[in-house]
Amino acid sequence: MLGIDPGSRVTGYGLVREASGCLQLLEAGTLRVGSIADLGVRLGRIHTGLTELIERFQPNEAAIENVFVSKNVMSALKLGQARGAAIAACAVAGLPVSEYEPTLVKQTLVGNGRAEKSQVAFMVAQVLGVRQPDWAVDASDALGIAVCHLNMRRMRRLAGV
Amino acid sequence: MLGIDPGSRVTGYGLVREASGCLQLLEAGTLRVGSIADLGVRLGRIHTGLTELIERFQPNEAAIENVFVSKNVMSALKLGQARGAAIAACAVAGLPVSEYEPTLVKQTLVGNGRAEKSQVAFMVAQVLGVRQPDWAVDASDALGIAVCHLNMRRMRRLAGV
Repeated sequence: MLGIDPGSRVTGYGLVREASGCLQLLEAGTLRVGSIADLGVRLGRIHTGLTELIERFQPNEAAIENVFVSKNVMSALKLGQARGAAIAACAVAGLPVSEYEPTLVKQTLVGNGRAEKSQVAFMVAQVLGVRQPDWAVDASDALGIAVCHLNMRRMRRLAGV
Repeated sequence: MLGIDPGSRVTGYGLVREASGCLQLLEAGTLRVGSIADLGVRLGRIHTGLTELIERFQPNEAAIENVFVSKNVMSALKLGQARGAAIAACAVAGLPVSEYEPTLVKQTLVGNGRAEKSQVAFMVAQVLGVRQPDWAVDASDALGIAVCHLNMRRMRRLAGV
């Protein structure tokens, strides 16, 4: 399972495996492209970075946060471009991409849709059994999305849907 | 030379070759994804469609309109996603991507930065020596961007830049 938290400067990713009902961390990190001036090179880097991760870890599915855009149109456009490059990388590799509302990710992890990022990071580490996580906040968010998706899938399975 | 006019529903493309100072139309058309509900499949289709065109026609460069966003944040995000998928396809294929202001495209083609789309379509057909163009308006815009880029490149060459 690949979770992605795309951004125009930093894209977080997290890979989580479910084995016998337990969640296991495979990889977490960030693709930092904020210092690259050329738009094509920047989006290509996001795309290539995710494609390499998909080839290496062979996830079956991807999940991404449904964006809640509160800022101006220019930042929405930039965020959209990063999302487009990321989602296209998954789609081209044959991965179905699910979208989750940020409040749902927080709700399933922390039990509170308005939880702080630090609480999400704490719970992600707990669920994955990692004592001292060394990943960045964007990677933590991406892991949160992956964990949320696996939980939702488990619930749907239990509900027989 | 590949010109692209990306959109969340319709992405126009146009391929133009410069041979002995003359511009020649290779291909023009649209990728229509508006009826596809799944975001991943939609963006994957844009990416794959452009990748196939790049493999078939082997352009050296790509150009895209610099967006002038006047609508709301949601449409900016959607347009950004389509742009991101399109630009990433070019970048992954190794094509440098240039951006041009819509007013510059119109200025170089029609001589008026506020020209109507129909005037752009007319001049594109004139420049490419096509009598009765049968392409859609989005394809025409994409051809306009390609022609604009080739004209700018020629001017830069003449100016010794």
